[in-house]
Amino acid sequence: MNAVIDQALEAPTRFLEVNGTSYAYRRFGRPSQVPLVGFQHFTGTLDNWDPALLNGLAEAREVIIFDNAGVGSSGGQTPDKVAGMTADAVAFLRALQLEQIDVLGFSLGGFIAQQLAVQHPALVRKVILVGTAPQGAQVLRGFPELIQKAMQLPPAERFLFIFFTGSAPSRAAGEATLQRLWARTEDRDRDASVQAVTAQINAITTWGTDPVTLDLSTLRQPVLIVQGSHDEMMASENAYLLYRQLPNAMLTYYPDAAHGSFFQYPELFVHQANYFLNHIH
Amino acid sequence: MNAVIDQALEAPTRFLEVNGTSYAYRRFGRPSQVPLVGFQHFTGTLDNWDPALLNGLAEAREVIIFDNAGVGSSGGQTPDKVAGMTADAVAFLRALQLEQIDVLGFSLGGFIAQQLAVQHPALVRKVILVGTAPQGAQVLRGFPELIQKAMQLPPAERFLFIFFTGSAPSRAAGEATLQRLWARTEDRDRDASVQAVTAQINAITTWGTDPVTLDLSTLRQPVLIVQGSHDEMMASENAYLLYRQLPNAMLTYYPDAAHGSFFQYPELFVHQANYFLNHIH
Repeated sequence: MNAVIDQALEAPTRFLEVNGTSYAYRRFGRPSQVPLVGFQHFTGTLDNWDPALLNGLAEAREVIIFDNAGVGSSGGQTPDKVAGMTADAVAFLRALQLEQIDVLGFSLGGFIAQQLAVQHPALVRKVILVGTAPQGAQVLRGFPELIQKAMQLPPAERFLFIFFTGSAPSRAAGEATLQRLWARTEDRDRDASVQAVTAQINAITTWGTDPVTLDLSTLRQPVLIVQGSHDEMMASENAYLLYRQLPNAMLTYYPDAAHGSFFQYPELFVHQANYFLNHIH
Repeated sequence: MNAVIDQALEAPTRFLEVNGTSYAYRRFGRPSQVPLVGFQHFTGTLDNWDPALLNGLAEAREVIIFDNAGVGSSGGQTPDKVAGMTADAVAFLRALQLEQIDVLGFSLGGFIAQQLAVQHPALVRKVILVGTAPQGAQVLRGFPELIQKAMQLPPAERFLFIFFTGSAPSRAAGEATLQRLWARTEDRDRDASVQAVTAQINAITTWGTDPVTLDLSTLRQPVLIVQGSHDEMMASENAYLLYRQLPNAMLTYYPDAAHGSFFQYPELFVHQANYFLNHIH
């Protein structure tokens, strides 16, 4: 298992300049025709992807994670709407000369993944959405208050509060995730800036309050939705509402799990995601 | 894989007499403290369990399948209510001197599994429910007409109509399931009798129309729910309604799948079910 784990931990941070903006990214795993590109959550950077998940996915395909414009070690400004973030991501993906990708969107990254898949159907082959919500989701109105509450906690407790439930098994899984996230000691990414965080909060809340523009029923790509049973950030029910709008989707609720459902069950998620990416059409 | 497949196919049919009724059953797999007991669907017998599923489950634990009273090669009469079927099953399980079991309930078998788990919490450790619905499910009112429609088709087409969608990949998976179900040529079970079928239709429709007596919120056992995206027999939405009532559950919808969701994705189901039985508490 160690040789595998090293892939995500040891992948060097690379940079690609696109229209004057430098994008930080890491690329690793088994070379494949269709790489899997990860779209990160609110405040998340390259170092917030659980290596256990990345390595499990990288056994079967190439994995690319990146900091969108204004995030972490990337240059530029973070847009304050999901549409702008999607446009930045497309510029980066085009500059990498990728013709077709699979997408893993987590939380805010799941909003971008939805917009990308609807607007760029030739680019996106399959979509995995974790802990996310469709446009117009009611719960997002309360996002700033929830984040305010989280910010008053010390970092490790904040992480557990957001991504795990209060149960002993969930918290233990959270501690294990933290150890994996801290395992990389060299070539770490920068934290998200105040500008990025502020813009992301606006993008998240307006995803809920702005008029719905995406018609998810037009999304022909296969979609795998993974959600925790007790996700306060996105409200667990939103995953079912999302599922109901999609013509070709698979949905799983993980038990006793909050916003970090896939952190809590890495083996289960990796098997499910690889099965989906390899076999579902 | 052949050595494994042989387990379900070659397990001999055994008989156990309980209060004057002879129960037909098969028991195989890796000896384990908590065996998994399968509760079969409407008209189903020992030969309607997909060997690919049974063998995958039997790699990790002992598996028991049986004909409830009046079904297949078992003696006695089939009760016309789920409560009576549950009482018969309990008598059989007690006679086998089983102290604790995991339960796999498919369709009508899922109704019995729910009743068993609520009424016998010490007997039932974990519950897997496939293609089933909670008490009071609206759709069950139309069950006799749907069966009437199915019965006008030749057997193989009837099987595909009930358990698979109209898509080419789903039908191909259905043909593969049929080949697996037909692979056993010796020591096959008897078909369900007219008495059993008539009683089962009544049990299924009254599960939907009788007053709700089970409080699923009291069910503390972990539950895994698996459902097809396009199940006309049980209406796919019922799985979510069931999920919402359970305090500790995991839910998965398989894509492009009808009532036989787990037949269509045996590898996925086996991994998910074994993970659930081994790791979820």
